[in-house]
Amino acid sequence: MNPSFDQQAESYKKLIDSRIFELIDKTEPELLYEPVRYALQSGGKRLRPVLLLWACEAVNGDIENAVDAAAAVEIVHNFTLVHDDIMDRDELRRGRETVYKHWNESVAILTGDAMLVKAYQTLTAILKPDTFPIFDEFSRAILDICEGQIMDMNFETRNNVSLDEYFRMIDNKTAQLFSLACTLGAKLGRGTDKQIAMMQQYGIAIGHAFQIQDDLLDVMADENVFGKDVGSDLYKDKKTFLIIHARESASEKQAKQLDNKLHLLKNGQTSVNEILAVLKEIGTIDAAKNEIRKALNTAGQSLEPLPESQARHYLNELIKTIEHRTF
Amino acid sequence: MNPSFDQQAESYKKLIDSRIFELIDKTEPELLYEPVRYALQSGGKRLRPVLLLWACEAVNGDIENAVDAAAAVEIVHNFTLVHDDIMDRDELRRGRETVYKHWNESVAILTGDAMLVKAYQTLTAILKPDTFPIFDEFSRAILDICEGQIMDMNFETRNNVSLDEYFRMIDNKTAQLFSLACTLGAKLGRGTDKQIAMMQQYGIAIGHAFQIQDDLLDVMADENVFGKDVGSDLYKDKKTFLIIHARESASEKQAKQLDNKLHLLKNGQTSVNEILAVLKEIGTIDAAKNEIRKALNTAGQSLEPLPESQARHYLNELIKTIEHRTF
Repeated sequence: MNPSFDQQAESYKKLIDSRIFELIDKTEPELLYEPVRYALQSGGKRLRPVLLLWACEAVNGDIENAVDAAAAVEIVHNFTLVHDDIMDRDELRRGRETVYKHWNESVAILTGDAMLVKAYQTLTAILKPDTFPIFDEFSRAILDICEGQIMDMNFETRNNVSLDEYFRMIDNKTAQLFSLACTLGAKLGRGTDKQIAMMQQYGIAIGHAFQIQDDLLDVMADENVFGKDVGSDLYKDKKTFLIIHARESASEKQAKQLDNKLHLLKNGQTSVNEILAVLKEIGTIDAAKNEIRKALNTAGQSLEPLPESQARHYLNELIKTIEHRTF
Repeated sequence: MNPSFDQQAESYKKLIDSRIFELIDKTEPELLYEPVRYALQSGGKRLRPVLLLWACEAVNGDIENAVDAAAAVEIVHNFTLVHDDIMDRDELRRGRETVYKHWNESVAILTGDAMLVKAYQTLTAILKPDTFPIFDEFSRAILDICEGQIMDMNFETRNNVSLDEYFRMIDNKTAQLFSLACTLGAKLGRGTDKQIAMMQQYGIAIGHAFQIQDDLLDVMADENVFGKDVGSDLYKDKKTFLIIHARESASEKQAKQLDNKLHLLKNGQTSVNEILAVLKEIGTIDAAKNEIRKALNTAGQSLEPLPESQARHYLNELIKTIEHRTF
């Protein structure tokens, strides 16, 4: 019998974890490599590298050639988290102190830098002449993430961000790395051009849905399960799907009510649940769920041209998991 | 007639500058690429990339294959400056506001990140199967720099740093990038293993001397020429060659006098010149000059096995320039 989605995801997560810690084998200077390891021991879902391995298998490739690329993608992901946490002043991530909070800002800057270099070092070590172009994909995706992050920060100072701009931002900041994972997997698995394009589209769609789900969870999650501070986007004036959609769709009265409650929230005089009630009334929560479903639908369609396989089945299961994730 | 050292250095600097700005061709988002360009328009000496080109020529190579690697090395160097300035809270560099001061810390973090990616992207774009191993050198050198920087910061909180530890720190933080430049130049120029080893040794020695000269300039430079705040290492309790040597060599009376004057300096009650006088008396200034001469001597010897060439002549001239540099 084939392993279930959860079993298979867990087994690939372990494979990637053990490879990551083989790669990060240096211990000195401790003040650099301890936080590097700490950042990578976060107990995350390893969603992106698992996706990379499935994408490789879905085009009938051998994951042996892809494990190191998967590790590199996960290291990049965690590099972005370490630096983002400094910028966003986030003190908690997955239930633990962030590197910047646990050590200090300088340590967190260097930790991220070293992780980015390790990711490149890992990827360059496995390259062969025919997989060269993967490199440019890799660099472009990381630049996209930097661009998305600066857009996100810039939005915090603006009140007129449109949903279009928001979508461009999350497609850079979040979806590109999902897309990179899928593309690298398909390329290292020696898929056809058509298959690679389909996996890339799947990755973008999954990432798009994932980020809007993240925005939703900021107001709807159970803090103990979520591992982050609930409502933190609201406190920081992040322009999430929810805020932008609500401002675009609210009646004058609803808009006033929303602004009023956001103001009270920052003064500790109301709860995130109260904001959620207003967002529901405006129709924003339904709109977010629709947007997520639409993207996941695209993701599902991208899988159709792929040959029937166990990996394709898991990629389909992942769509459901993202729709229903609570953390 | 062959161009003079200054003419040749200036012409290669221009070549590298124009290549760098061809490579950094994106303009949007402005909040990311404007500071990237700003950081690279610093009017620096471009010492490392010029060195790379001369190392290439000194082994009889064609610099056409090396210009992009030179640009990559210079971008890496500036990436480290952008991030170091955040950590060191330096507001002035080469007479201009640092990125962190001119924009803010988050912008400076992302600017550095994007520069590091650009450096890799530049280098990967020119790779051929037989120049593959260059990549690992590149990654290892950047990791060495991160390690050196964390050691440097860690030293600020310690009072018992030895000269040995200091040398290990500067060889990581400063000399490795000089060494990388020389090694890449010699490898891309298809030098022999012996030539590559000699150029690597030259780079380490030059970098070693350069850093101790930098420490010296912190107390001896003319601020208008230096482009940095004179005495800033002293204010920040940086463990420079001067401070470590002075503490190791001072008599009890001299040590007290030094500590006293350093304390007064921080309260604005004495001048950097007064500290300099104490350091001279202890013999630290002479010791620094000796250490510089010793390293430059090694650099000179490393050039001897190379064939006679105009590039070797420039590399020899560079030794004198570093000994007498004032900025």
